[in-house]
Amino acid sequence: MPGIVTAAMLVIGDEILSGRTKDRNIGHLADIMTAIGIDLKEVRIVPDEEDEIVAAVNAVRARYDYVFTTGGIGPTHDDITADAIAKAFGVACEYDGRAYAMLEAHYASRGVEFTDARKRMARMPVGAAHIDNPVSLAPGFRIGNVHVMAGVPAIFQAMLDNVVPTLKTGAKLLSATVQCPLGEGTIGGPLTEIQKTHPDTIIGSYPKYLDGRFWTELVVRARTPEALEAGRAAVAAMVASLSTPA
Amino acid sequence: MPGIVTAAMLVIGDEILSGRTKDRNIGHLADIMTAIGIDLKEVRIVPDEEDEIVAAVNAVRARYDYVFTTGGIGPTHDDITADAIAKAFGVACEYDGRAYAMLEAHYASRGVEFTDARKRMARMPVGAAHIDNPVSLAPGFRIGNVHVMAGVPAIFQAMLDNVVPTLKTGAKLLSATVQCPLGEGTIGGPLTEIQKTHPDTIIGSYPKYLDGRFWTELVVRARTPEALEAGRAAVAAMVASLSTPA
Repeated sequence: MPGIVTAAMLVIGDEILSGRTKDRNIGHLADIMTAIGIDLKEVRIVPDEEDEIVAAVNAVRARYDYVFTTGGIGPTHDDITADAIAKAFGVACEYDGRAYAMLEAHYASRGVEFTDARKRMARMPVGAAHIDNPVSLAPGFRIGNVHVMAGVPAIFQAMLDNVVPTLKTGAKLLSATVQCPLGEGTIGGPLTEIQKTHPDTIIGSYPKYLDGRFWTELVVRARTPEALEAGRAAVAAMVASLSTPA
Repeated sequence: MPGIVTAAMLVIGDEILSGRTKDRNIGHLADIMTAIGIDLKEVRIVPDEEDEIVAAVNAVRARYDYVFTTGGIGPTHDDITADAIAKAFGVACEYDGRAYAMLEAHYASRGVEFTDARKRMARMPVGAAHIDNPVSLAPGFRIGNVHVMAGVPAIFQAMLDNVVPTLKTGAKLLSATVQCPLGEGTIGGPLTEIQKTHPDTIIGSYPKYLDGRFWTELVVRARTPEALEAGRAAVAAMVASLSTPA
């Protein structure tokens, strides 16, 4: 059985912390990680401040198998992710020859000036590998276990599609959901007992509130189909017994 | 002029990290903080694991004026936030007399059993103050600078409404937006110069990608209306001069 593979995400950008932009990348990465069998264990949203990015990158890259960042790799002065990642790894941040040539040719072919701002998008930590950007060309990059990608969702998603096949993946956390018409206060006690007798599952209870009533989504997760089914059956039986008038 | 007041948010829950539930609370807190003049400096999403919650709470409560948490205060076994917060503060987690009596009366009046699961919602760190919950009664709580609230968005928002009037607020970060039909590669250089000559502003550039074209939203932020207007005018003038054919 494959082992557990873990990941963290860093969302870099003042605009998320100010509320101006609502993040749409966390949910996407979470979905993809779950689908391929990598456990997303932590997400941090940090401002466009070099020290903060460096500290966060170094904290999470030491703890998890993979780190994924979004944001801060464009051409403007507030795009400081490449420099911060280089600093975190203790390497220089320089023009990457291949990225520079690629962008230079791209803008030349369109008759667009290759400004200093556009050249910034060719900068990356020395030793980094490209992450191709099929949307707008300027590449992301990988250094060590850190994957640096764009914040614009369409570009982030396209870059992530290119990264996914390169990742080692672990035992998928399988899941099964039991819809429960009862509130958590009713099923909480029995559910605790089921969790105790099914230690190879993770049972989550997600309260839903609609039109003044609580109902609950009960999610059983496990690494094997057998453990999953045993946990799911126990939860479903409990819900059925409590839902049926005595 | 009021000083800077800072905050961090902890989103607690496996369901966010697995992608099953898409967070809707980060954007709301960010909007409210910006509106009242508190700088949200960091957000962390952590799993339902006591050690992780304790470490994250202790890391952020030492650094920022306020901490806001969402999630993990319901009646089921995976709701461990109250215990984790108590552990972070080095105090016991016990039934709160007032919360217990309130919930007991509430369920009695509805003829609903006050189960051990429901009683869990009366547990909080010793010394914590209630945060009223007008939606479903079970209170959140505040201990020190940490405000512990529900993860269900309707309840989180109602609790936050009760917390906001109790917070000291700082100098609001005012903002002005300039829509720019040009991509960042074109305006990046001039924008860097404007940022340098307007050090009392924070100028952000947010690339938008639509129908195969880039445009840019330029956001100037400042603590005084004068600095804001000077920065905004400079940015608007730059955009106008580059947008007009020579």
